[in-house]
Amino acid sequence: MSDKKTSNEMWGGRFASGPAAIMEAINASIGFDRKLYAQDIRGSLAHSEMLAEQGIISAADQKLVAHGLNTILREIEDGSFVFSTAREDIHMNIEARLAELVGPAAGRLHTARSRNDQVAVDFRLWVKEELQGTAEALKRLLAAFLVRAEEHAATVMPGFTHLQTAQPVTFGHHCMAYVEMFGRDLSRVRDAIERLDESPLGAAALAGTGFPIDRKKTATALGFREPTRNSIDSVSDRDFALEFLSVAAICASHLSRLAEEIVIWSTPQFGFVRLSDSFSTGSSIMPQKKNPDAAELIRAKTGRVNGHLVGLLTVMKGLPLAYSKDMQEDKEAVFDAAEALDLMLAAMTGMVTDMAVNKDAMRKAAGAGYSTATDLADWLVRVLGIPFREAHHVTGRAVALAEERRVGLEKLGLEDLQAIHPGITGDVFSVLSVRNSVKSRSSFGGTAPSEVRRQIRYWKKRIARA
Amino acid sequence: MSDKKTSNEMWGGRFASGPAAIMEAINASIGFDRKLYAQDIRGSLAHSEMLAEQGIISAADQKLVAHGLNTILREIEDGSFVFSTAREDIHMNIEARLAELVGPAAGRLHTARSRNDQVAVDFRLWVKEELQGTAEALKRLLAAFLVRAEEHAATVMPGFTHLQTAQPVTFGHHCMAYVEMFGRDLSRVRDAIERLDESPLGAAALAGTGFPIDRKKTATALGFREPTRNSIDSVSDRDFALEFLSVAAICASHLSRLAEEIVIWSTPQFGFVRLSDSFSTGSSIMPQKKNPDAAELIRAKTGRVNGHLVGLLTVMKGLPLAYSKDMQEDKEAVFDAAEALDLMLAAMTGMVTDMAVNKDAMRKAAGAGYSTATDLADWLVRVLGIPFREAHHVTGRAVALAEERRVGLEKLGLEDLQAIHPGITGDVFSVLSVRNSVKSRSSFGGTAPSEVRRQIRYWKKRIARA
Amino acid sequence: MSDKKTSNEMWGGRFASGPAAIMEAINASIGFDRKLYAQDIRGSLAHSEMLAEQGIISAADQKLVAHGLNTILREIEDGSFVFSTAREDIHMNIEARLAELVGPAAGRLHTARSRNDQVAVDFRLWVKEELQGTAEALKRLLAAFLVRAEEHAATVMPGFTHLQTAQPVTFGHHCMAYVEMFGRDLSRVRDAIERLDESPLGAAALAGTGFPIDRKKTATALGFREPTRNSIDSVSDRDFALEFLSVAAICASHLSRLAEEIVIWSTPQFGFVRLSDSFSTGSSIMPQKKNPDAAELIRAKTGRVNGHLVGLLTVMKGLPLAYSKDMQEDKEAVFDAAEALDLMLAAMTGMVTDMAVNKDAMRKAAGAGYSTATDLADWLVRVLGIPFREAHHVTGRAVALAEERRVGLEKLGLEDLQAIHPGITGDVFSVLSVRNSVKSRSSFGGTAPSEVRRQIRYWKKRIARA
Amino acid sequence: MSDKKTSNEMWGGRFASGPAAIMEAINASIGFDRKLYAQDIRGSLAHSEMLAEQGIISAADQKLVAHGLNTILREIEDGSFVFSTAREDIHMNIEARLAELVGPAAGRLHTARSRNDQVAVDFRLWVKEELQGTAEALKRLLAAFLVRAEEHAATVMPGFTHLQTAQPVTFGHHCMAYVEMFGRDLSRVRDAIERLDESPLGAAALAGTGFPIDRKKTATALGFREPTRNSIDSVSDRDFALEFLSVAAICASHLSRLAEEIVIWSTPQFGFVRLSDSFSTGSSIMPQKKNPDAAELIRAKTGRVNGHLVGLLTVMKGLPLAYSKDMQEDKEAVFDAAEALDLMLAAMTGMVTDMAVNKDAMRKAAGAGYSTATDLADWLVRVLGIPFREAHHVTGRAVALAEERRVGLEKLGLEDLQAIHPGITGDVFSVLSVRNSVKSRSSFGGTAPSEVRRQIRYWKKRIARA
Repeated sequence: MSDKKTSNEMWGGRFASGPAAIMEAINASIGFDRKLYAQDIRGSLAHSEMLAEQGIISAADQKLVAHGLNTILREIEDGSFVFSTAREDIHMNIEARLAELVGPAAGRLHTARSRNDQVAVDFRLWVKEELQGTAEALKRLLAAFLVRAEEHAATVMPGFTHLQTAQPVTFGHHCMAYVEMFGRDLSRVRDAIERLDESPLGAAALAGTGFPIDRKKTATALGFREPTRNSIDSVSDRDFALEFLSVAAICASHLSRLAEEIVIWSTPQFGFVRLSDSFSTGSSIMPQKKNPDAAELIRAKTGRVNGHLVGLLTVMKGLPLAYSKDMQEDKEAVFDAAEALDLMLAAMTGMVTDMAVNKDAMRKAAGAGYSTATDLADWLVRVLGIPFREAHHVTGRAVALAEERRVGLEKLGLEDLQAIHPGITGDVFSVLSVRNSVKSRSSFGGTAPSEVRRQIRYWKKRIARA
Repeated sequence: MSDKKTSNEMWGGRFASGPAAIMEAINASIGFDRKLYAQDIRGSLAHSEMLAEQGIISAADQKLVAHGLNTILREIEDGSFVFSTAREDIHMNIEARLAELVGPAAGRLHTARSRNDQVAVDFRLWVKEELQGTAEALKRLLAAFLVRAEEHAATVMPGFTHLQTAQPVTFGHHCMAYVEMFGRDLSRVRDAIERLDESPLGAAALAGTGFPIDRKKTATALGFREPTRNSIDSVSDRDFALEFLSVAAICASHLSRLAEEIVIWSTPQFGFVRLSDSFSTGSSIMPQKKNPDAAELIRAKTGRVNGHLVGLLTVMKGLPLAYSKDMQEDKEAVFDAAEALDLMLAAMTGMVTDMAVNKDAMRKAAGAGYSTATDLADWLVRVLGIPFREAHHVTGRAVALAEERRVGLEKLGLEDLQAIHPGITGDVFSVLSVRNSVKSRSSFGGTAPSEVRRQIRYWKKRIARA
Repeated sequence: MSDKKTSNEMWGGRFASGPAAIMEAINASIGFDRKLYAQDIRGSLAHSEMLAEQGIISAADQKLVAHGLNTILREIEDGSFVFSTAREDIHMNIEARLAELVGPAAGRLHTARSRNDQVAVDFRLWVKEELQGTAEALKRLLAAFLVRAEEHAATVMPGFTHLQTAQPVTFGHHCMAYVEMFGRDLSRVRDAIERLDESPLGAAALAGTGFPIDRKKTATALGFREPTRNSIDSVSDRDFALEFLSVAAICASHLSRLAEEIVIWSTPQFGFVRLSDSFSTGSSIMPQKKNPDAAELIRAKTGRVNGHLVGLLTVMKGLPLAYSKDMQEDKEAVFDAAEALDLMLAAMTGMVTDMAVNKDAMRKAAGAGYSTATDLADWLVRVLGIPFREAHHVTGRAVALAEERRVGLEKLGLEDLQAIHPGITGDVFSVLSVRNSVKSRSSFGGTAPSEVRRQIRYWKKRIARA
Repeated sequence: MSDKKTSNEMWGGRFASGPAAIMEAINASIGFDRKLYAQDIRGSLAHSEMLAEQGIISAADQKLVAHGLNTILREIEDGSFVFSTAREDIHMNIEARLAELVGPAAGRLHTARSRNDQVAVDFRLWVKEELQGTAEALKRLLAAFLVRAEEHAATVMPGFTHLQTAQPVTFGHHCMAYVEMFGRDLSRVRDAIERLDESPLGAAALAGTGFPIDRKKTATALGFREPTRNSIDSVSDRDFALEFLSVAAICASHLSRLAEEIVIWSTPQFGFVRLSDSFSTGSSIMPQKKNPDAAELIRAKTGRVNGHLVGLLTVMKGLPLAYSKDMQEDKEAVFDAAEALDLMLAAMTGMVTDMAVNKDAMRKAAGAGYSTATDLADWLVRVLGIPFREAHHVTGRAVALAEERRVGLEKLGLEDLQAIHPGITGDVFSVLSVRNSVKSRSSFGGTAPSEVRRQIRYWKKRIARA
């Protein structure tokens, strides 16, 4: 059945030229998979060498092919390579150019492989390298935090719950919380690399091949730990891409939390930090204004990463084995999420390194809001042996009195406190200062500067090994 | 505090050049918002005309500005405009060029507006036009379905539940199910246009302005129904973008269902349809193979659209008013989803128009699997007055007998049927054929060809008005 | 093939009892679809009345059925009805009980319908009623905002961009931004109701029926505008559920923004509002602490609503027509999102109504940060005729000077200003106060109290009609 | 400010009783967190023992507390415990009951801890146990696949790409593709357990404590590898929950693919498998019909798991440290996803174990569609030394001829083949049979039965160790 309408009526707008334009637009991937050119050439070189070593192609043909591939690599890198949408994808673009350069030998390169295992190899290599880059970026961010944590191991600030002042902590301790988070992100990245470190090359279209290939050789040549163990799975699963995206999404959620804190801390109302010019934008008419653009964009890009994760999970849902064209949607999601994550990590590392910390503002806020009330309660338990829940009630009455008088807890007189509980002694005042409060919390992982420094030492060693 | 390391150690990789490169990469939007150039110029023209009419700028300045803007429009469209990343976004790129072209008059254009309302106007205009294009694309798809539905109003095929044959229907009726779905999508598009049809121009940075502007004039000039009613909301909300994405996601879910059916129908096992060469790819060694690439890609792109919806919902979650830089992430999500939806609709319209329907395969499958068993049960209720649930049991026994004999229901003898229920008469055979089954289901919206044709007539009229 | 292992080895844990337990757990829906009991009974009553009027069943049978159904309704509502998981769903539970109560007449009720159209009717009715409830809840929230907006039409506060002070606005104006957002949510709800207002009853399993039913009668009896027009679509699409979820997600994004603002405004650092005891939790030891739990939970529940939207979009992706069991997953998502949205709207209405506004804190913050710098720039344009971009530079110098002297702009002497631009006159001071700044922005939709009051009047009328 | 309206007007519907009802509904978590009762009691026992050993509470008090906690455990498990919504959550419910049972000693239990570290411990323990259960369930599924793979190591079936027949494979090989996928899922589960295996107990509210607690002791007592290293991170991050959800989502995507295949394979058109009665539902009137309900529900529940992942990612986005009430939304998402995943794995294990494989249908389909065309091309390369790309063209011509004659490739005469390429000899027919095709693909991970058996042996050993 064919339509009598003119193309313009039928398709309208940008597709007025009809089916061919639509199919090319929806089908061709060269617009984005050209990013895989280096991996594609590396895979072909490894494959051709193995074919020659196994006697499947001649050494002469292999030489030609290798020469041609290296020429193409140069052409792409110096910008002289002409990409063609008609040739659909990076594999066909390179293959066609190889045929131009070396003639029939090019045709022998495709013995015992297909585009299905070729794209699987290329994409795994790319994701593996991206993850290795992410690991390095995370280590730079961790290092930046360790510097700030050391510098501020004893700088007091309010610890918040519900964004309300709860107890004093140190800024170094707060930094070390992020070291734990990004440290776990790093270990997730390492696990993901370990899991994907298998070469699909030689899975061919989906069933393996009858040619006497040596998949261990190509795996080793490409830096993979070993070859994959099932040819159908090799060409049809993309859980390494899903794992990359989910690792990225969790890391992004950590980055977004820190970004939110930076936005809030930068308000005139909080004033805890001041961003460097490098990572904020000014206003020509309000010179005091420093808009935390980089922090806002980091916070926002979390959406992009989460979105790509959802996108690829949706693509893979209910897809029968083996390869379906749906899987072509895997790359843009991963490429864009990877670029976003790289940027977020680099920008955050910059902000953490550069931002000026306003110790005065932090200290002042740390002491407000009866932040040492818990210390008073703990003293009542420890020194007077009152059950904790009862100590809470006593403390509550003390705070209520202080609030009534509009003073801090430490400004109440001993008689006032004794009126509330007769057992209280002058010793209590030692725990009501912010500095002592922080110092006292020396349990493992607590906010005491000594403990913070211990954890800094631990992480320095661990990152050196990571 | 500053870091002593060389930039390379500090930033590594692509950001070795340090903070400036990172900030430019994360902050600049000109890479994608240049898509808004026409809307931006249109908005500026309308604004300058209104400023002149209100006496806020002089007629002479307005003429200069208009001339400059038209020059820029030509420069962008003929490719001679030089975009600059240092100028961050499309607005600053155009503004800076305007200053070069017309001098100080350019500076007067920004009276009583800011980038915040400017980008809100540009983006609304873009989304509105995209939605109008989507409406047209949906109408083309609906028209394509109506052609096929008319052609196949009486072509029988199996109606499936759980992908198991349930009852015979007609292919025309199946097509009309999609007309209902895409018809609702069209009405969602119309509602979205109606709701966003307000001009934010004149909201200025966030508080409105003291200049005696006339916002109704600019709204009208730009084709909006009216101006927005709150300046803070005008620059800080993006629910029109979220609504576009959710409308697109629901439409994509419909497209994905049809795409899945086309993939299944194209298997040799089903063989219901054969795609045209335009929308499938062949295999050089298996000439009979027609891979339904376009259908697979449509199915897959659903993930992309859903992902962008999630992305923007995540961006907007918990964002304090008014403008935050996070909102810069709105555009790429919408642009990419829009491009995907356009392509999906165009490719699907092509496939629906072109695909060859194998009536024989459909008819054969329609009669298999005791698909008229419900018709037998209905006959027992209607003619013999047996309660429906009991009729089901009688039918079950008849089907079991037919299965035992490996024949269709209509091949059982009258005595066989009477042995199961003595009241059965020869009249029963009239309902056991697929054709009669389909014909009988003439309730409103049912699969009877007469009813299918009635609904086709209804929709033809409705689309003509839509 | 059967497994020799004992069930315990085979299934382990909670499924040790084997396949039957698993299948019941995965298949039965009575645990959640019992929520549809009232709709199910209403649908059956309408269906039986129509069957009797059309002469398909006898009036006597109809009476029996109606009596039985009403008995069941009472039993469910007084808690005496015994739900059975073995009977899978609400439809089978009611049907089986009906058979116990009225015998064979119960079997006649299922003439010309199936579980497929029955569940479609029940669920549409439920979603429609939920949407009607959401509309009422939105109207209550809008009303609460209008009260606060009127009260605070002239209360100044800082308008923020990037969470940095930008320009003064009024709290009433800020409230009205939310009125616009929730007003659009309300119109989305109305559109969704309008679109789903069609009765699927009579679509039967998927093909319609040969019984002479009258679908318009049942549609009217159930309060639907009209019957659906395609029986396959009627039982296989769930875009009304997707639309509900996307409308809910957009509304939730608005709620989350307001919740975030309330959390920030409630910090001691901002101190703009103080929540009532009803919507916050205290601390036994820090009496001044009011944790904004309700606001935090509203912000968080956005995730839940978005998640359910993603869940159902994923379920529907690529599902072939007509009914598949996958669609049973539609209900819990919608029920839980609906409950969350109801709670969020009710809690937010309470907070908006109750919260104490600290006008002093708002006013003080409104004047900080050179918030009237734009007013100075506007004055230079308006009075001296300087191009806006140049006026910005002059203003920048004035602010820099004020910052150097650590005073507000209004505290600079006239000579200081004239040193920056000789044309400046004493008149300029009239625009440098927060109050005058706000008052001057009287453009349509601007923050001037007179304009805010105009928009309040508009919305009062509009909500009365909505 | 207070509202004069009656509650009913103000709140409407279910919240007519006003703020208290709303706050209780939004705030209380006892409805779902009671699931954590065993973990909560275990945590309290470990904490009290450590407190006594460290001399922070007396041995007598510890005995009382332990006795009380064990009593409460029994009460909950025998159903006699009365849960109270007014007591908000599981922690307060247990604490209040403990006070009733043992008096003031109960109050001493809360020394050096808070609800923040208590809930973090409880939830981590729960997730860890769930992951351990998931590992066992995955091992059962893997074992089920290995049984089927062994049984069908040589059973031929079509290998599909684009759901079109591509090359023959064996059903055993296809099963082993899933072994690889679920094997990776298992390793992801192990990594997740390893990463979360740290005890937050002793982090207290957020800052650690001044009491001389021993966090290693409680960590060991609760089966954790070690205590967490930062008290702020311990109470404020939930990436272990996000990791659980992302691991579950990837596993669900694998399950959904297999479910889709089962649905398609169960159609009369494919007929590759027949589900057991245990995991399908029948139809009373179409006895041959077996609706693959369990497979459809597994496919659908992928949406639910993905949705919960999105939900929690959205909750955690941009949340400032340390604890915010938003995080209360973490539990229902994880509980529901866990229950879904358990069910999906159990049902899938049952289906894989039980389903009857129709070898005839598989073999017949494996030979259709010129599935050995690639084998012909490979023969031309291997035996005649033709470059692969040229061999493809020769093969294409042979298939075109066979298709013209409507026969299989193996039915063409030698002369016919020689007319296409004169070098072809009778030896070629050895590679054109499905059995030989499969047998020949013996590369590592290929579909040859010998290779499939090798991988089965590998996996048996690996699972035994896993």
